This record gives sequence, structure tokens and C-alpha cells, in this order.
Amino acid sequence: MADLLNPRPPAPEGAPRRPRLGILGAGQLARMDQQAAIALDVDLRLLADGPGDAAVLAGAEALVGDHGDLDVLRAFAAGVDVVTFEFEGVDNALLQTLVDEGHRLVPTPTAKLYAQDKLHQRRGLGAAGFPVPPFEQARTADEVAAFAATHGWPVVLKAPRGGYDGRGVGVIADVAEADEFLAPLPDGALVEPALTIVRELAVQVARTSDGTAVAYPVVETVQVDAMLRELVAPAGVDPALAAEASDLALRIVEHIGATGLVAVELFLTPDGLQVNELAMRPHNSGHYSIEGAVTSQFEQHVRAALDWPLGSTALTAPAAVTVNVVGPADGSDPRERLPAALAVAGAHVHLYGKGARAGRKLGHVTALGPDAATARATAWRAVEILEGTAS
Amino acid sequence: MADLLNPRPPAPEGAPRRPRLGILGAGQLARMDQQAAIALDVDLRLLADGPGDAAVLAGAEALVGDHGDLDVLRAFAAGVDVVTFEFEGVDNALLQTLVDEGHRLVPTPTAKLYAQDKLHQRRGLGAAGFPVPPFEQARTADEVAAFAATHGWPVVLKAPRGGYDGRGVGVIADVAEADEFLAPLPDGALVEPALTIVRELAVQVARTSDGTAVAYPVVETVQVDAMLRELVAPAGVDPALAAEASDLALRIVEHIGATGLVAVELFLTPDGLQVNELAMRPHNSGHYSIEGAVTSQFEQHVRAALDWPLGSTALTAPAAVTVNVVGPADGSDPRERLPAALAVAGAHVHLYGKGARAGRKLGHVTALGPDAATARATAWRAVEILEGTAS
Repeated sequence: MADLLNPRPPAPEGAPRRPRLGILGAGQLARMDQQAAIALDVDLRLLADGPGDAAVLAGAEALVGDHGDLDVLRAFAAGVDVVTFEFEGVDNALLQTLVDEGHRLVPTPTAKLYAQDKLHQRRGLGAAGFPVPPFEQARTADEVAAFAATHGWPVVLKAPRGGYDGRGVGVIADVAEADEFLAPLPDGALVEPALTIVRELAVQVARTSDGTAVAYPVVETVQVDAMLRELVAPAGVDPALAAEASDLALRIVEHIGATGLVAVELFLTPDGLQVNELAMRPHNSGHYSIEGAVTSQFEQHVRAALDWPLGSTALTAPAAVTVNVVGPADGSDPRERLPAALAVAGAHVHLYGKGARAGRKLGHVTALGPDAATARATAWRAVEILEGTAS
Repeated sequence: MADLLNPRPPAPEGAPRRPRLGILGAGQLARMDQQAAIALDVDLRLLADGPGDAAVLAGAEALVGDHGDLDVLRAFAAGVDVVTFEFEGVDNALLQTLVDEGHRLVPTPTAKLYAQDKLHQRRGLGAAGFPVPPFEQARTADEVAAFAATHGWPVVLKAPRGGYDGRGVGVIADVAEADEFLAPLPDGALVEPALTIVRELAVQVARTSDGTAVAYPVVETVQVDAMLRELVAPAGVDPALAAEASDLALRIVEHIGATGLVAVELFLTPDGLQVNELAMRPHNSGHYSIEGAVTSQFEQHVRAALDWPLGSTALTAPAAVTVNVVGPADGSDPRERLPAALAVAGAHVHLYGKGARAGRKLGHVTALGPDAATARATAWRAVEILEGTAS
């Protein structure tokens, strides 16, 4: 069987058993879950790809194995009280087998499918009356052209499964591009109009199995090259719109019966809010919450997964801004410049322990402030030092 | 040689080497250091008593061995870039040997001695003109009686080394009690008057090797049964007194050349401030800083030990109160009541993973608030639930 890394010793004689929370995945999200779990004295066990995974480097106990192998999943689930996630791309049918065999999954595979399959999400939420963009399933370039005849070129094609950080999404100008995009996708793609996006918003929601749910303040995310680059909490939108976004996110999570932590990503368009994607795990749009909210999304993830009382989602400052640290084009490692970045007062630096590679998310910096502009300036100053672009 | 627990894999080919910070000790202070080190991607290596130590349970890499054995210390120091501490009771001569052999210790043994030996501290600080209580070294009950003849009974006797949380300290009413206290102490004790203590204050100071130092706001500590029970940040004293305490702490740390993190404990007496003890490591009086200061004392410890820029010591809220979680008399484990305590909004619960025993520090709860009374009420509500005394 697979290796167990950083194995914890057995509990002392007579000690109450610690809850053991299983997380599929061992990247930076699980790494930050681990920091939160230490405070609550919860034993995490992760399913990792190997000893170099970000969370394993942080000392989390981890089974090494392939999450596509049912026997690995069974062995993993047998060793924990609850299975939760730090990514989406696990075979839903295998998850259902675990449930059928009596394991507790947060969220359930039925809910998780809304985060795994964009077409399923659009169909389900659209049928329930939630605001989703116009969409069709397109298997051929002709079907794409038919959609474009109504909605205009360009259109957006999305692989239903497996995409993240812009992968699996294409802005398609004509039939030839549609053909190229669809070639590797036997089941076709989701086709949507190229929306006019005024802002991208996100709402973190946590929900326990009794239906109790809390929403974090609505945040705004700024994408560069389709990857989240900056996030601002709270979003600079009017209170009525913020309330609408928050209400929408809570209703969606309730409707699909998701438990655990859910990030609801929304587009603000000239026609109002539209659902973009759901993520059922801690999400980059919630990283500000480590310093910027009373309960971080990572502690909330642990609480929700164990069905414990949820924590306060109030902000700790008028504004919090998080900027991702991305591997510079010259391949240098931001860690080399860490001491210089720490000289920026009020910059909270988080590095993930991952090998540096151009364009790779390697960490993030959060700053709090009396307003978003002040916090943004602080966070960017540290990030520019880390990325080697400071003047 | 000793076991290495939770060993980290070698860094990937070509990756810049992570700094490796060695900490002697693996209890709850190292556990919280570990949480901070994860964010900064610093590899910790601890010297632990065994696999059940609080920080080892949190996944920190640890060598198991006896810190009183020079060969163990040598092997430990050889594997790290810097050696720092989470407790005081390491043989100073062995530490000096490590320095003589070229290892970098933060603080140096010369400075550390002020935290290890109360008599050395009183002599050194007294000679330099810092406000210390009247004191003598007393080897016999007659010498105690002579001191009492000047200062009155009762007196306070303190074992020069090894005491903490009230151990090694006695309030002595007469010669017979003095005899009993001195019996196991061949080198005698420190004798002092029983001071009238108006308040107990503490100041955390961090200092790097170039002499840069920062002080945290002055906090007030409340002891019960000689163990810290509650701490309030900032202390409710007038600004002139707070400034005097802060200035005193910084001057002391500068005078003795301490580096790393130092807690300066002070008595406020009717005659003004008097130095109580120094601790050269994170200290219970600084636990509020995890949520209550921009830079926690644990992150500051890591920064200072690596000679990195020090972080802001500003408070994040008008008031922060920390209450320790102490093992209840019935031997029950507060962890059993954790979910109920998490229902207290704004209570930040930290459990250390230690086995429950009556009177043992098992964790702490911090709450922030608009004033100390509000924060105190929140923190105590959660602690009473954890300790099973909530009505």
C-alpha cells in the first residue's frame, strides 16, 4: 500500500480521540488548512501526490496515492472520520462509491458535481431559476456557429470538466477556432456568449449538515491571464448589490445542498449578476480571510467539514487586499527576496513551499487598511519585491 | 543517534535552500512557532523529548534527544543554521560550547543567562541601575532572617534557576520555612521582600543582531496560583507609565545584548516599576498577538532568529484578552467540549494537543474587542465552556 508521510504517533492512553479530517489533495490550500487545524487540535490526513506537496512540506500527515484509484480512496477514507477536498478533479463516480460504502463526504458527490461539471451546474442552476448566462452544449463547430448566430461572435467555449485558472476556457472567434477547441473534447463543450464583465465577484459560504450557513462579505477579484491576481474585501459595490450577491450565493448553496466551504464566483454584467463557477473547497478568493476575517476560510473549512459551529465571517479591518505571488519570467524564486519583502510594514507574506516556475502561483500577500487603496499599495509593494519587479 | 520525526524530504534540484531554524524544545510555544514558520516557508527543526510533544504532534520536524547531552546538542546544531529556544532550562556552559564551536545561537548564552539565573539577572541589572527589588543571595536560614530584619517578614525566596509558573518560588514567613525551602538548594536562593504588587505587566521585545529592536504594547497579566491566567493588551495603565515600561524593556534588552524574542516581566509597585523576570523566547504574555497584533510573537521570533526585518507590533483592535485553558480538577479533557466553545462568536481557540491533567495549561482563547471588558467576557465564556464550568 501507499506510503504514510509524517505519521502521527498514537494518542496517549486514555486520551480522547482527536477528530481525523481527511482532505483529498495536499497543495497550498491543504497547507493553510493545516495551519488552522493545529490551533483546533484536529488531526488532518491528506491524500498527496508525493513528499514534495506543499502541505506535506508543512508537516501534514499524508498518504501518498492516486485519487483516481478506488482502492487508494477506500484505504484513505477508512482512516479518517470525514473526507473533504482541496480541489475539484476527483472522479465523481468513485466518490459516490465511497458514500455507498458508508463514508462521510463533505460535500456529497451530488453537490460536488456542481463544482466539477460546468454543464451540470448551468443546467441545474438555470432550471432552478438562478441567473446563469445563456448556454448550450456544443459537440460540433456547427453547433457553436448556430449559438453564435443568435448571440454573436466571439463566443466562449469551456471544457465542462477539469479546467482551472483559465485552462479549458477559450474565447472563440470563428468556426475554425471552434473546431480546434472541440477536437480533444468528445463530449463537447459549454458554449456561452462573451459577456461584458463589469466586475468579477465572489462569495464564500460555509454550511453544515443541519442547514446552518454563513456567508463572508462579497469580494472582488481581478484576473490577469485568467489567473486570480488580486482580491479586494469587501468589494467596492453598492450595499444593495452586495446583499443581492450574498443572498444569491446562500440560496445556491442551499439549493444544491452543498456542505463544507463553497466559493460562489459571480460576474457582474450590465444585465446584473450571473453565476460563473462554484468551488467546493477553500478558494483563492478567500485568502484575505486569514488576517482579514474573524474566522479564516481555512478554519471555517475545518469547522464545516466536522459539522462544528461556524465562526464569525466579519471583517477585521475596513479593507483587506490579497495579491498573489507569481513565479517571475526569469525563473527566479521569490523566496530569495523574502527578507526584503518582510520589511514592508503590514504585509502578511505567505509562501507555499512550491518550486519556482514562471507563471506559477507561489504564495500571496495580504494587507489590511483603512481603505482598499492603502491596503492594495502595501500588498503590491511586498509582491513587487518578491517578484523582483520593485523599482 | 536519536530519531528524526516528521523528516522533510530533500529540496527539489535547483531550488534555493530554505533557511533551517533550530529550536530547543517542542512544546506549545514551538507548536505556534511552527504555524508561523509555515507561512514564511521556513524549515523548523526542533529538539524534542519524544513523539508526543505538542509541536511534534503538529508535524514539526524534530530530533528526539536530551538537551543536557552535549553530543545531542552538537548533532542538533550541525543540522540547522541558527539555534533558538522555547524554554530557558538548558545548561549555559553547553550552549557556550556550541558557540565556541562556531554555531549561531539566538540569543547568545551570555544574554540567555539573564533569563536562566535570577540571581545573575538581579546582580547584572541592579549594577547597571535598572530598577530591581532589594535582594540578597541567601545560603542559610540565618541569612534569610538577616534580610528579613531589614525588610520584614514574610520574604520571598526564589531558586535562582529552573523555576516557572510559580515553581521554585516561596513566600516565607519564618526561619523554619526558610530552612525547608533552602534544603534542596546547595547554592542558596534569591531573597527579596514581599513586594506590594499593584499590577503585573509585561513587554515583548524583538531584537536582531544589528541592534534593531521593537517593543509590543505593554500588557497586563493576571496570575492565579502563580500561573498566568489572563492577559490584557494593552494594559490599562496611563500612557506615561506604558511608555516608561516600554522604554525600560528596550533598554534592558539593549544592555544585555539579547537577540531574538524577549519577554520582560515587570511589577508595578507603589514605588514604581520593578523588574521581575526575563524570558528569552515566545512567552504566554504574548499569546494575544496571534490575532491581536499585526505580527504575532511567533512570526516575530522566527524573523528575529533569522535576522530578518522585524514586523509591526501594532495592535489590530482596541483590546485583546487571552485566557488560558487549564485542565479541570475532574481530569476531563477540554477538547471534548471544543465544538460548544466554538459557538462563542469571536473566540479564537488554541488547543495544544497535550494530555489533560488537572491544573495543566492545555490551550488558550483570545478575543478582540472595542474594550477590554468586552473582549474579556468573550474569552472567558469560551474558556468556561472548555473547562466545564459554564453555567
